[in-house]
Amino acid sequence: MGKERSEKEKVGGGEHNKRNMFVSCVVMNSCAAELKLVLTALLVLCSIATLFQILPSRFAISASDLRFCISRITTTTTTTTTTTISPLNSTTTTTTTIAPLNSTTTTIPLTPSPPSAQKDQVADNGVIKRVFNPYGSAAYNFITMGAYRGGHNTFAIIGLASKPLLLYSTPTYQCEWVPESSSASNSTFSTVSYRILPDWGYGRVYTVVVVNCTFSEAVNGENSGGKLFLEASTSGGGDKNLNITDRFEVLNESPGDLNMSLFSSKPKYDYLYCGSPLYGGLSPQRVREWIAYHVRLFGERSHFVIHDAGGVHEEVLEVLKPWMELGYVTLQDVKEQERFDGYYHNQFMVVNDCLHRYKFMAKWMFFFDVDEYIYLPPKNTIKSVLDSLSGYTQFTFEQMPMSSKLCLSADYGRYYRKWGIEKLVYRDVKRGIRRDRKYAIQPRNVFATGVHMSQNFAGKTTYKTEGKIKYFHYHGTIAQRREPCRNLLNVTEINFENVPYVLDTTMRDLAWSVKKFELKTIGPKLQNTRQ
Amino acid sequence: MGKERSEKEKVGGGEHNKRNMFVSCVVMNSCAAELKLVLTALLVLCSIATLFQILPSRFAISASDLRFCISRITTTTTTTTTTTISPLNSTTTTTTTIAPLNSTTTTIPLTPSPPSAQKDQVADNGVIKRVFNPYGSAAYNFITMGAYRGGHNTFAIIGLASKPLLLYSTPTYQCEWVPESSSASNSTFSTVSYRILPDWGYGRVYTVVVVNCTFSEAVNGENSGGKLFLEASTSGGGDKNLNITDRFEVLNESPGDLNMSLFSSKPKYDYLYCGSPLYGGLSPQRVREWIAYHVRLFGERSHFVIHDAGGVHEEVLEVLKPWMELGYVTLQDVKEQERFDGYYHNQFMVVNDCLHRYKFMAKWMFFFDVDEYIYLPPKNTIKSVLDSLSGYTQFTFEQMPMSSKLCLSADYGRYYRKWGIEKLVYRDVKRGIRRDRKYAIQPRNVFATGVHMSQNFAGKTTYKTEGKIKYFHYHGTIAQRREPCRNLLNVTEINFENVPYVLDTTMRDLAWSVKKFELKTIGPKLQNTRQ
Repeated sequence: MGKERSEKEKVGGGEHNKRNMFVSCVVMNSCAAELKLVLTALLVLCSIATLFQILPSRFAISASDLRFCISRITTTTTTTTTTTISPLNSTTTTTTTIAPLNSTTTTIPLTPSPPSAQKDQVADNGVIKRVFNPYGSAAYNFITMGAYRGGHNTFAIIGLASKPLLLYSTPTYQCEWVPESSSASNSTFSTVSYRILPDWGYGRVYTVVVVNCTFSEAVNGENSGGKLFLEASTSGGGDKNLNITDRFEVLNESPGDLNMSLFSSKPKYDYLYCGSPLYGGLSPQRVREWIAYHVRLFGERSHFVIHDAGGVHEEVLEVLKPWMELGYVTLQDVKEQERFDGYYHNQFMVVNDCLHRYKFMAKWMFFFDVDEYIYLPPKNTIKSVLDSLSGYTQFTFEQMPMSSKLCLSADYGRYYRKWGIEKLVYRDVKRGIRRDRKYAIQPRNVFATGVHMSQNFAGKTTYKTEGKIKYFHYHGTIAQRREPCRNLLNVTEINFENVPYVLDTTMRDLAWSVKKFELKTIGPKLQNTRQ
Repeated sequence: MGKERSEKEKVGGGEHNKRNMFVSCVVMNSCAAELKLVLTALLVLCSIATLFQILPSRFAISASDLRFCISRITTTTTTTTTTTISPLNSTTTTTTTIAPLNSTTTTIPLTPSPPSAQKDQVADNGVIKRVFNPYGSAAYNFITMGAYRGGHNTFAIIGLASKPLLLYSTPTYQCEWVPESSSASNSTFSTVSYRILPDWGYGRVYTVVVVNCTFSEAVNGENSGGKLFLEASTSGGGDKNLNITDRFEVLNESPGDLNMSLFSSKPKYDYLYCGSPLYGGLSPQRVREWIAYHVRLFGERSHFVIHDAGGVHEEVLEVLKPWMELGYVTLQDVKEQERFDGYYHNQFMVVNDCLHRYKFMAKWMFFFDVDEYIYLPPKNTIKSVLDSLSGYTQFTFEQMPMSSKLCLSADYGRYYRKWGIEKLVYRDVKRGIRRDRKYAIQPRNVFATGVHMSQNFAGKTTYKTEGKIKYFHYHGTIAQRREPCRNLLNVTEINFENVPYVLDTTMRDLAWSVKKFELKTIGPKLQNTRQ
């Protein structure tokens, strides 16, 4: 990668340890499934061994090349596999050892023979022909998160791809549709297939890819079922001699399952929230306030998709549960993506998955964070605002940054019982700073999205939303488990740590009605939630 | 949450992420424990083998994961291989197709069946557990170029590794020595193993690694033969769940082959030239001039190692041949490294291979290019200069930049018969420009090297070589097949294209004696060489 990037720890952004994630996968499997996997893995390896007896030895598979075969097996078992492959007729031994990062090691020998590593050769004219022997694998070609139909003949596949592959090579992607019944018709290939890289050049080992595949005519038009395959070609990225195409199933439509009317019907929801992955030690009380506030704001025809990258611990799940039971919240557990080193919990992949997964289920989609509160000035409703913006595919709105520690002296002795939006009442009014904006889209016109805006959509965008909609941002409060109030003030203006603040009780004034709404809707069950 | 972090570009290279939490389990285990485990596992494997006929086979190795197996097959054959893998009894098909980038395709089917991709699952509490399915491989873990002994108990392995692996993870490297005769003694592991990244943060898909392995005592001390293996561990780089160790042979010492006296004897050569990889349409005449000039300069106890990355075409080979036949030149064909996308024809790998390959064969090693001419001012000889610098492991020397197109009017009508150093006589004297320097080292004290200097050596370095040694640089002449003279001048100073030049006939004055030396040494066979 031409440019190395160093990441700064986000201030107050939580003490999440990214490295802890790899523990999760192993724990999930039941013992029975594990045993079966181990046994079947051995079967496969033996089958391969048998196969090798038949193949001429110079076509044999290198042990190091089997790494990935084994890696898949190891992922789903708690034992460690060491593979020793002895040569049939060469003097070279090559071994791949795969150790899950948190367990002890056992060793299982294998049989297939690797080829001898190639050796340097001296030509007749004295020239030394040097050879370069490659081993193992350092990154997957493609990792799928989701694949979604976008209409009668078009699909989107969301995943990660190797970043240097995309930076230095031109991998290509194509879709193939295979009908369920082989008698029906032959498989067809997409005529237009392009990739979108929505993450602004971020990414580390992996970067986010949205593949858009369009076929020349409707696929599965008879609703008889079929499968979508993605073909991902490296175009010589890791080895200029080879164009390697991995072909794999990404979507399976069972006969009768497809409802084409979905794409033209009125969506189920008016407003859908797509959250970035949550991680770290989140405050249950802050999350409780946030969800109650926004369910009240967006109303009955709204839905919230929360993505858990490790932040939704037991206490946070408790405050979400009542809203999940009422159908307001869907929780997506995306912890598994932590295996793959991308940008910031792979947030660009997660929001794009959300976009395409719920594309036809909502008229408007909002993208903002759980320390941010949408605010509509008096005389506006969410409907009136969005109706006035319905000519735009996308609009963005401005930020009101709030202090995460300045509170009112008047609340002294009672602030620990008050809500965050109630007690944090000082607004940062420093000028000349470009502040992030947040945005909403009409998803049917959008092909890929980002964190602060979409850059891939049909239609118009507007930034002129002042006086209609904005958001209050309580940065540094969400991953804070102790009381946020640090300084109690009784002034309307103050310069604190070189930043000018003014008293702003806009949100404080709404807290009472949000509390009332929560009590009315889900009862008192969350009254004893802790910070 | 979800706020994008501001990322700063790092200046320079070699800095890495600090993921030191991953520790290779494999390294920790004693050999005895391992052996026990191997045997136990073997027993288990054999017992289970008999049951395999009965077991269902829906868990099998993913075809895409076999990609690398197949890629190796393709690499070692000249035919093109497309591999189609059909499922045994599952509904999912996964296929890997490998097409060499420049030939037509034939098809060879393989048999192992892929597993179904994992599917998302909805838990009892309504949480959707998302899965991420990885496929294929985008980069090798390690690619070897050479492995060399550096003494009775130490080795250097030179190769390429995946760049994001090194940038975002902390892959580890260890060596294992396995004696030829299994009765002799057990294999031993290196006690100190460290990696040097000599390429200043350059690199693309791959970056250069020099692994230095030192054992606690002499290996192969009895000269009974043995093999060196490198164990390269990913430490979770491409998949945080897995620490994958590829183990492969890098060096093979046959019984009786080792000559330990090599490391303490007087080297065969006084001066050895290590060239960067040559590529492009080089001018045979320029190369002819360069080699004649430097053989004369460095004398009988010198040797030149030329690396061909595609630049040594038939006509260039012709002008090198006479010197190869006299033993002055070794030509290394390194074209195969072009398969692996690194920095500038992987030049940092090539010079490090040269360093370690010839470490004990020369007292001094020089690193400069074939458009550069070493110059010693009058009253200096190469011996007197290097003797005066013998207290230094490394010295660098300054550049005299020469115009690649300004010639003398006096040469009008005859310049196409004159040599480059003879007719290109205007020196760039622009001030305030930092110009590259070139360098020489005493290789026995050097662990890794670069293009403009080494940063990994024992001992001292000096830059104070003015008046002793410098080099004339004819930039832009070497890959130029037509006549370089474009402007004929009869002045001693000129401003040309905003650059001041002065007449400098230092090299011109030497041309006659170089021509005479060439004729005397190899005869007239190169007299008709073309530009």
